Amino acid sequence: MGWVMAMVLATTAHADEGMWMPSQLPSIARQLRAAGFQGNPADLADLTQAPLSAVVKVGGATGSFVSSDGLVLTNHHVAFGVIQYNSNAQRDLIQNGFVSHDRAEELPANPDFRLRVTTGFDKVTDKVLGAAKGKTGRAYYDAVDAASKALVTECEREPGMRCSVVNMFYGRDFYLVKQLELRDVRLVYAPPRAIGNYGDEVDNFVWPRHSGDFTILRAYVGPDGKPADYAKDNVPYHPPAHLQIASQGVREGDFVMLAGYPGVTYRHRTAAEFADQVQWRLPATVDVLRQLQDVIEEVGHTDRQATIRYASQLQSLKNNIKRFSGELDGLKRSDAVAIRRKDEDAMLSWLAAQPSAATLRPQIDEVAQLIAAGNATRERDLLLAVMQTQTQLMRSALTLQRLAHERAKPDAQRESGYQQRDEDLTAGMLRQVQRRYDPKVEKQLLASLLTRYQKLPDAQRLPEFDAAFGRSPAELSGTLDKVYAATQLGDEAQRLHWLKAEPAELAKSNDALLMLVGKLQPALLRIEEERKAREGDLLRLRPAYMDALIAYREKQGRAVYPDANSTLRVSYGKVTPLEARDAVVYHPLTTTAGIVEKNTGVEPFDAPKPLLDAIARGDYAGYADARTGAMPVDFLSNLDTTGGNSGSPVLNAKGELVGLNFDSNWEAVSASWMFDPRYKRAIHVDLRYMRWLMDKVYPAPQLLKELGIPAHAAP
Amino acid sequence: MGWVMAMVLATTAHADEGMWMPSQLPSIARQLRAAGFQGNPADLADLTQAPLSAVVKVGGATGSFVSSDGLVLTNHHVAFGVIQYNSNAQRDLIQNGFVSHDRAEELPANPDFRLRVTTGFDKVTDKVLGAAKGKTGRAYYDAVDAASKALVTECEREPGMRCSVVNMFYGRDFYLVKQLELRDVRLVYAPPRAIGNYGDEVDNFVWPRHSGDFTILRAYVGPDGKPADYAKDNVPYHPPAHLQIASQGVREGDFVMLAGYPGVTYRHRTAAEFADQVQWRLPATVDVLRQLQDVIEEVGHTDRQATIRYASQLQSLKNNIKRFSGELDGLKRSDAVAIRRKDEDAMLSWLAAQPSAATLRPQIDEVAQLIAAGNATRERDLLLAVMQTQTQLMRSALTLQRLAHERAKPDAQRESGYQQRDEDLTAGMLRQVQRRYDPKVEKQLLASLLTRYQKLPDAQRLPEFDAAFGRSPAELSGTLDKVYAATQLGDEAQRLHWLKAEPAELAKSNDALLMLVGKLQPALLRIEEERKAREGDLLRLRPAYMDALIAYREKQGRAVYPDANSTLRVSYGKVTPLEARDAVVYHPLTTTAGIVEKNTGVEPFDAPKPLLDAIARGDYAGYADARTGAMPVDFLSNLDTTGGNSGSPVLNAKGELVGLNFDSNWEAVSASWMFDPRYKRAIHVDLRYMRWLMDKVYPAPQLLKELGIPAHAAP
Repeated sequence: MGWVMAMVLATTAHADEGMWMPSQLPSIARQLRAAGFQGNPADLADLTQAPLSAVVKVGGATGSFVSSDGLVLTNHHVAFGVIQYNSNAQRDLIQNGFVSHDRAEELPANPDFRLRVTTGFDKVTDKVLGAAKGKTGRAYYDAVDAASKALVTECEREPGMRCSVVNMFYGRDFYLVKQLELRDVRLVYAPPRAIGNYGDEVDNFVWPRHSGDFTILRAYVGPDGKPADYAKDNVPYHPPAHLQIASQGVREGDFVMLAGYPGVTYRHRTAAEFADQVQWRLPATVDVLRQLQDVIEEVGHTDRQATIRYASQLQSLKNNIKRFSGELDGLKRSDAVAIRRKDEDAMLSWLAAQPSAATLRPQIDEVAQLIAAGNATRERDLLLAVMQTQTQLMRSALTLQRLAHERAKPDAQRESGYQQRDEDLTAGMLRQVQRRYDPKVEKQLLASLLTRYQKLPDAQRLPEFDAAFGRSPAELSGTLDKVYAATQLGDEAQRLHWLKAEPAELAKSNDALLMLVGKLQPALLRIEEERKAREGDLLRLRPAYMDALIAYREKQGRAVYPDANSTLRVSYGKVTPLEARDAVVYHPLTTTAGIVEKNTGVEPFDAPKPLLDAIARGDYAGYADARTGAMPVDFLSNLDTTGGNSGSPVLNAKGELVGLNFDSNWEAVSASWMFDPRYKRAIHVDLRYMRWLMDKVYPAPQLLKELGIPAHAAP
Repeated sequence: MGWVMAMVLATTAHADEGMWMPSQLPSIARQLRAAGFQGNPADLADLTQAPLSAVVKVGGATGSFVSSDGLVLTNHHVAFGVIQYNSNAQRDLIQNGFVSHDRAEELPANPDFRLRVTTGFDKVTDKVLGAAKGKTGRAYYDAVDAASKALVTECEREPGMRCSVVNMFYGRDFYLVKQLELRDVRLVYAPPRAIGNYGDEVDNFVWPRHSGDFTILRAYVGPDGKPADYAKDNVPYHPPAHLQIASQGVREGDFVMLAGYPGVTYRHRTAAEFADQVQWRLPATVDVLRQLQDVIEEVGHTDRQATIRYASQLQSLKNNIKRFSGELDGLKRSDAVAIRRKDEDAMLSWLAAQPSAATLRPQIDEVAQLIAAGNATRERDLLLAVMQTQTQLMRSALTLQRLAHERAKPDAQRESGYQQRDEDLTAGMLRQVQRRYDPKVEKQLLASLLTRYQKLPDAQRLPEFDAAFGRSPAELSGTLDKVYAATQLGDEAQRLHWLKAEPAELAKSNDALLMLVGKLQPALLRIEEERKAREGDLLRLRPAYMDALIAYREKQGRAVYPDANSTLRVSYGKVTPLEARDAVVYHPLTTTAGIVEKNTGVEPFDAPKPLLDAIARGDYAGYADARTGAMPVDFLSNLDTTGGNSGSPVLNAKGELVGLNFDSNWEAVSASWMFDPRYKRAIHVDLRYMRWLMDKVYPAPQLLKELGIPAHAAP
């Protein structure tokens, strides 16, 4: 596609964009049918009814029931913790995979592993906003928070239920989500790592892909049918619905749809927020993180021990730098800022002629002012946020002092993260410090961040910080040397002691770092207070922006889906090639030939011998593409996904399972802000590959039978 | 295409393979027409007649006449020396390009730049082999050499002619090539570097490509019409023929053909030579070169000065390692060894039943024995060859001692490279030493190579080397330290003095390195003598292998082209996409959209502003693809090419110029040994891009007129 033509397309609404709430599907029934869906969109409207009730939340990702006895299909990488938990030197399930031959062999998941089945999704906007009406700022925020917490508490009275209040369209609508939490989940079938994660980091975000990224679990309940911890006598859970695996595969152009729990998107943010993200936030974040990377790598030249301690943080910095840079490149390539600006300008022009302008426009203007006000200190806020996540002792001190502050309140009123139920997590963090800390490195990281801070204009700096660290790099360096030489926070027992200590003990402590942080804390609390007030007002005012946008889109003949927020969404589209660059076309289906091409015998391209042997035999009867004779592995679609959609079932026009979502392409890393139809693709395991593996390579005939899939064993 | 299916294809003869001698084209007329050629193949049979007489040799590459007044089209990278010669700080033609507005502005090339127009191509097999008949070994070699030299001397009596004897099918047929050598060549039109070499090393061997790799020169002769050195009064040369630029472009699947001077291929080498190349030579060479790379990089950690001196050698080592590794990967991917072995076995089985077997088979067996005999010392020979090319002082000493040895003979009988006409080149080499030499590094390079040598079995080692360097690394190291501390070869004046000195002075010299090399020289001369004897016998015997192969192919209904040897060849095929890997397809045409996509503003992706502006304007009328509206840049074909084909004209079915060959794809780096139709592609400038640049971006209306191309200027 020519560049100019593509630019035109990118500015046009695209039919395949959208992470729809199931309740919205009847209203877009016409376009859904036009795209090729053969079922009745009305049947998809209630996510607590079949078939969508088969789609479950697995940790932060997605899975789906695929048998009436509770089999769950999800990704290998989503269930990886379960596989790891059951692996040891004698029985390495990561390396060898796992096939359970009967139910007695199924292996219990780690005890904190959870499946959640959504049983209720009710609109509670009036209840949530009732007490907030008329309030502003922090008071509005607190009223919403209190009403939400009350609804959750009420809902969770029913045993085995996990509830939450979610908001759609940035505070416009609120829903109470009720989920049955299943605690006994067992491992049933997993391919070896070199199939489930073939290509690993090298192929991450890459198409063409050749992973068999799937795993099968089974949910169990107590003999009474209620959620229960693992027990030998538990029985398979009978889900309210399960999906049927298709007997046929897909081809380029076929209709597909997907249901899952996408985490977060920013598609309906304002033009100013788009500009901030592209013109400042992404480049500035990359710049700050690169500076930290440099510090760690520089130390690595001479100190092997420090290199090891910071290896994981360095890897994470690099991943984030790569990811943010990719997002920035993508948003620039899509010209996202200009397109969003043009769209918003058109909306505001249209709005000016509407009766609603009188009430909406002032609120929209106020949103813009609030965003601008937040941006006034964005450099400082970025540095403080990075300081709190990229340090060990400093973070420990900040956490301990904040905890002492929160403990003065009743537990229910404490800031989340500092309630009693959070203390185990905090203790874990305080323990990890030892393996990840070196005083020399931490001082240099802080010096790097705070030297930047010292250069900020007066309006962004904080008196408490200036007093503590001085105004020059020399003062800063002297303070850090002195404080880190004197603190006892480097001692694990001492940290854990302070975690349990009374607030008064911390207040009296003469530990150098605790005292320093004690002086900084008022500034941090003040900033947080300001932020919450702003967020309260945004929660109150953004719905006006969304009302205008929804009305404007309606006039354009388009429905609006809410930005993703980890609730169940449906997207639809088709099996689609990718023209990633000029003259470069990626076919939407990969084949086993590509496994052989990529195979080096060395991790991560070390396909297991049984797989290579089976490919050499070419026994694909019943699975291969009838036209080409090739055996499919993965496929590509233009489905609208984001993080959290891992493990989402991909369905064909009849609603049968044809694929399992597990990744997206590198060009789509900016899709959380903007869906560019040229580049947005999702990557799925072709279920023909899964079926073939379970039939011919690591056979599990009884499972195929339970899944209702015919095996194609050689005669 | 599935992997299994592709494997089958690769074992089948492929119609598009072949670098045909023009005289062969009438014999393959049927397949040429079937492929789409619309002309008369008989018209292409004589390379001294139109249209092939328009194809000229430009240095080691190719060009073609494109006007009756001597305009020559070739690559930017082929004419780069001419552009560089005319560039300086005030007038940077590399950076800015060059447009001559009338003939007076045309700029003379560097004085050693030559165009060669082939005017004769006569079979001289009988004359060359007459005196060799009945001889063997070195005598056979010398007889062929003497007869060839005599023919060349005779031929070059005509002023302005450059002659050579070339052999086809490894000694089966000999031809006398007569070429008119044009010495006054001028620069007429060159795009800026950032167009002519857009992407540079990053895109080298890469498709999709976006280079405008073309330059236009003009040949001049004296007022008498004869070749002459540059002079103001010279007049444009009127070539015997010139090519016409097509008014239409190409599309995927279109017939194309190409004429040029491919350098060297090994397609008809024996199965044993294929096995040697893949199983030993490429991996061993990469291993040795990597060891040298390690030595240089290791020193670089601590010695900045040495790093700079060896930067160019290191770059060259890396390039060679990459290239050889790519060739190895390609030959393995194509399963070249097994396929060639199977083919040769089939040929020998077929031959066994033929009457000719009685005479051919013994000779073929003798070829195999000679190859095996050469391989018996291949490890040693590789190390000695690398020692002579990858050192500075050692190479200087070897060259000076050999020169002294050769000077004892009449000039005509000296080894080529050591004749009087070679001494300027040698002096240049001896001068360069200073900038590329560090004694510490050279000693380590030699230690690395000679330690390997010391581990070779007795049968491969040489008494002279053992005596000079000892049998242990310690002795070796001691010798190198002593010799390099004592030699005066590090001094440039001294080296140049020895270059001019009488052989007797060198013989008496007590310079440590010259003396050492003096002791090694008898061994090196002995090895060379053995090699020439073997080569003489191979020259005598390989024709039997070729006779058998040609007869066997004839029975298969296939003609055989001779391996490339820098003589004019024609290949034909079509505009072809590349399926480089599973699910990855490269379209055969790139567009200006790709220039914008790749552009970073930083070299080598720094497209000039006039180009970017013209793309933004999108004024492509008369040039863009009618169907897509896209403006083509480069295109891809399956034409059979190798090094030397740079600048080759690419013609359409009517024989009109549609493209200019300038590179091949990375997957085709193994094509010098085997043409794999799945991967072998050639990369061409689309002449629509050239015409558009000359019309709209850096206009040269008078040139377009001379080229007979309509301009499409805006009204």
